[in-house]
Amino acid sequence: MTQQERPVSAAVARRAELRERLLVAGRAAIEAGGLSSLKARDLAAAAGCAVGAIYTVFADLDELILAIGAGTLSALEGALESATGDAGAAADELSRLARGYLQFARAHETLWRALFEHRLGGRAVPAWFLEDQNRLFALIEAPLARLLPQEPPAARARLARSLFSAVHGVVFLGLEEKIAPTPAATLDAELERLVRAFAAGLAAESPAAQSPGSCAGSSSS
Amino acid sequence: MTQQERPVSAAVARRAELRERLLVAGRAAIEAGGLSSLKARDLAAAAGCAVGAIYTVFADLDELILAIGAGTLSALEGALESATGDAGAAADELSRLARGYLQFARAHETLWRALFEHRLGGRAVPAWFLEDQNRLFALIEAPLARLLPQEPPAARARLARSLFSAVHGVVFLGLEEKIAPTPAATLDAELERLVRAFAAGLAAESPAAQSPGSCAGSSSS
Repeated sequence: MTQQERPVSAAVARRAELRERLLVAGRAAIEAGGLSSLKARDLAAAAGCAVGAIYTVFADLDELILAIGAGTLSALEGALESATGDAGAAADELSRLARGYLQFARAHETLWRALFEHRLGGRAVPAWFLEDQNRLFALIEAPLARLLPQEPPAARARLARSLFSAVHGVVFLGLEEKIAPTPAATLDAELERLVRAFAAGLAAESPAAQSPGSCAGSSSS
Repeated sequence: MTQQERPVSAAVARRAELRERLLVAGRAAIEAGGLSSLKARDLAAAAGCAVGAIYTVFADLDELILAIGAGTLSALEGALESATGDAGAAADELSRLARGYLQFARAHETLWRALFEHRLGGRAVPAWFLEDQNRLFALIEAPLARLLPQEPPAARARLARSLFSAVHGVVFLGLEEKIAPTPAATLDAELERLVRAFAAGLAAESPAAQSPGSCAGSSSS
């Protein structure tokens, strides 16, 4: 390391530290009042910096919100990974993943809602954020590959996203009790039934499951 | 009719007419800019009345938004009813209903989104609005009753709402392309596959379908 690099490194470290303080402040603001409560002025005050300093580490508030979202996805991934295990039947693992998703949404409701409320207004989602998403979907693709070994990877990728969307719909409307009173135990049971029926129906689609008597059993291996 | 009733009737008619103008103006505002663009001042200007006059026909803007939502539900019901027919197999009808829901959401996207964005902030949803919702869910319960004849009505009602939520999740995230690029034909095909797999899986659950070889066939009749 040359002598000239020292001040540069110190500046880099200060910016990294400011970035972290802004992320913590932004996350706290979303948790307290939802995405709409995130204001540059309040963020700067909470992070102890000038409003303009925000834009030395983030291009705009959207980028900060995406970075907070990436943290939420990472926490979700951690929660779901601890719920997976490649020994069990595919339907069991899909059911564990759905249950894990519901538990995560319950435990981090405002941060989780912010993931879906935030819109980039026509700008493309950055590649690094899509990679974070794709790691999550890979957790669903793995049991689907065991359930449907002959499914082409592209179709399986779509299927994982459809199943995620379906589970998300049940969790989203269920937690909000938007269309019906939904006690926690009811929501748990309905989600379980949805995922089990979906997995059984998919297994029945596949050629391996067309032999008599195999539809209700463990066609995942 | 007595002479005294004439002016009362005229006042009632004027209020009914103002109500209709406000609903038309509110619907147009939501269609143009979403739920957040609905402002009392703009509404009054569009309907040609004083701001205070709004509250002679609606208790508050929430009640006006609910009335607009009831109109959206009624239009959705009409669209779905024209897509049903009690002759076909249950899975076919569930698939037609899901397709009808997707088509309606595409054709009336902002009004449809407003149904789910609007929150009453702790107040109970009025009974007349729940009745409108329940008529919609009855359209799903009918084919489910043919698919699962031994399902108790309360469980079937929950199942109809879960299936609705799942379809809603796929439509909602798919139209927004929130988690993946979703061309129209892909979304159509994924929704179809989800509903077919769900119906086949549910049929496989039921005792009538446990006999060998019946899982991939028409256990709905």
